[in-house]
Amino acid sequence: MSTTAWSLPETDIFDTIRTALDDGSPAVLATVTAVEGSAYRRPGAKMLIRPDEDDVGSVTAGCLEDEVRDVAMDALEDGEPRIETWDLTGDDEVWGYGVGCNGVITVFVEPLDESYRPVLDARRAGNPVGVVTVVESETAAAFGSRARFESGQWVDSAGIPDDVLDELAPATTELVERGKAETIPVETAEGDLSVFVDGIRPSTELVIFGSGVDVTPVVELAKLVDFRVTVVSFRGGQADTERFPRADEVLSTSPRDVADLRAWDEDTLAVVMSHNFLDDRLTLERLLETPVEYIGLMGPHERFGEMLEAFAEEDRVLTDDERARIYTPIGLSLGGDSPYQIAYSIVAELLAVAHDREPQHLSRRAGPIHERVELDSDS
Amino acid sequence: MSTTAWSLPETDIFDTIRTALDDGSPAVLATVTAVEGSAYRRPGAKMLIRPDEDDVGSVTAGCLEDEVRDVAMDALEDGEPRIETWDLTGDDEVWGYGVGCNGVITVFVEPLDESYRPVLDARRAGNPVGVVTVVESETAAAFGSRARFESGQWVDSAGIPDDVLDELAPATTELVERGKAETIPVETAEGDLSVFVDGIRPSTELVIFGSGVDVTPVVELAKLVDFRVTVVSFRGGQADTERFPRADEVLSTSPRDVADLRAWDEDTLAVVMSHNFLDDRLTLERLLETPVEYIGLMGPHERFGEMLEAFAEEDRVLTDDERARIYTPIGLSLGGDSPYQIAYSIVAELLAVAHDREPQHLSRRAGPIHERVELDSDS
Repeated sequence: MSTTAWSLPETDIFDTIRTALDDGSPAVLATVTAVEGSAYRRPGAKMLIRPDEDDVGSVTAGCLEDEVRDVAMDALEDGEPRIETWDLTGDDEVWGYGVGCNGVITVFVEPLDESYRPVLDARRAGNPVGVVTVVESETAAAFGSRARFESGQWVDSAGIPDDVLDELAPATTELVERGKAETIPVETAEGDLSVFVDGIRPSTELVIFGSGVDVTPVVELAKLVDFRVTVVSFRGGQADTERFPRADEVLSTSPRDVADLRAWDEDTLAVVMSHNFLDDRLTLERLLETPVEYIGLMGPHERFGEMLEAFAEEDRVLTDDERARIYTPIGLSLGGDSPYQIAYSIVAELLAVAHDREPQHLSRRAGPIHERVELDSDS
Repeated sequence: MSTTAWSLPETDIFDTIRTALDDGSPAVLATVTAVEGSAYRRPGAKMLIRPDEDDVGSVTAGCLEDEVRDVAMDALEDGEPRIETWDLTGDDEVWGYGVGCNGVITVFVEPLDESYRPVLDARRAGNPVGVVTVVESETAAAFGSRARFESGQWVDSAGIPDDVLDELAPATTELVERGKAETIPVETAEGDLSVFVDGIRPSTELVIFGSGVDVTPVVELAKLVDFRVTVVSFRGGQADTERFPRADEVLSTSPRDVADLRAWDEDTLAVVMSHNFLDDRLTLERLLETPVEYIGLMGPHERFGEMLEAFAEEDRVLTDDERARIYTPIGLSLGGDSPYQIAYSIVAELLAVAHDREPQHLSRRAGPIHERVELDSDS
């Protein structure tokens, strides 16, 4: 088990799945469908297993990966998907090799084939997608039957009856919206089913305005936590992709054209760190014309004050709503002033905003670490 | 200018200085001594310049590094230190290549020689040190005269009069304590001086208990933000350094011997993530016997609740003070549940605790980003 491959961001796992499909090489996908108790990974966590390669991704903190690999090899042999549950409750003595586990973990294991490619394509195109799989069935809907939920519509759903899909639609909508996964029981006249609903979202888009050396550590950290990163330079000469090899995209434009640079939506995060006062001010002005709700601006309070004065000289007064979209000084208050420490504080803020979290110590916060998935459809 | 070398953690910069001294290869050290206005780096920021190598470290966000290199080459030629001030106020049009700068930045530039080695040795040995340099003088104390302040004592201070050192002692004590740097004016009967006081601290010590794959991303991120990282395994077989190549130290012990593992002080941060309930509980118990003030424990609230019950069964009830030292669930609330996202949240908490910061958006916080260095001796 390679620790580097084990901790790969979700985007890299999906990219590896695509490569396996492209190459036509045998591969098995394992997905956590349910956990009880204290588990490291959540439902939806994925691992790709190939006969002669390191496993990619993870389903636990390292304690079940070998067992899952064994199951995957069986699945590869007979070509059939399967589901396995490991009950590690109170198993510390047995599993206690310093990487002990707790909880009950259920994993769906499936030989990969081309039917999974549309999921990869949807995610790459920036579209959320729900992948729905029958994992227990007393009905004619066979174990492993699958449907996709895209743009509010069921697609490729031949194996699952319409009434089941109808009942799953509200929960699936919500799970896809939140990028969460859960196993849902469905009662039908014919009998009961359990359906695993995997809400898969594209990475959150991050657009960084600036091409200085200090952009590099921000890109590096942002990629590790799986943002999709676009770097925008205002000087074409500096915009070559080689300077930001880890960025997904490197663009060049003029600050005046920022609003037209791309499709902007409210979930896209913008970081303004050109260090150039004029460029930053124009970028800020243009970004305020877009639906972007997070605009992080590097520099001290005083610099933003000067920017507001410059706006005022052009009779432009920011509304309270506009002010609330601007985060300056950028970043969380974590202290430290080295390049990586500054970048760390910025990306910590991006994570908190992307996940709609109030940054605070988890230990000082009420409630569970992971938001409980409480579906409206439960009520 | 290599962006990787530009953003190197301080420890790596000091290590590169040591290598240059060991090799006897020509090298120049540049240190920011003062900034006014909006500057990316703070006083004390360092860059090492060598004739045929990439510069290491940084003094600005990339806009002055080339100029500083030129000055360094001059210093290498005549063997003399110098100080230069760049006034970039309102210079956006000139410096505005997408990496514009603001503010007034003063940099002390000195050819490196063996006299700097004790600074490296002190830091490596875990001892804070003050490096005091005359950067302006109307007196007999020559420009570039230097003294060190170690364990409350002046060392190698031949070039600076005792009365000046006496006056500098309180401010130096405080700057060393806080790891900050500042240029301080001193008035003497003979005339005025400016003295740059560089408070250099060793990296904060981080000790991680656990040897699972999920430890690796925590080590990686912690090293980027310059913690000194020790990984402690409870199973000798897993403790080989190869598994954690980025850790400074990999140790193996029994949970019962944790308190005697090393010298513990209140500034050392401990992270408990063996995943093994028994090992975690014993480690926690032993750590509470040490002065360590931050003990981060991985796992949900419920798991800690079970641990408290296990303590209670042995008639061990934690005091409020003990409870306050335990951070569980570990990490800041940033959302996300991939291995790097979990590690990111942990290291964000470590940074905030190490710097005594309340984690919150800098934009929502009153006051400057960097704590103003207000010396008691000013009053």
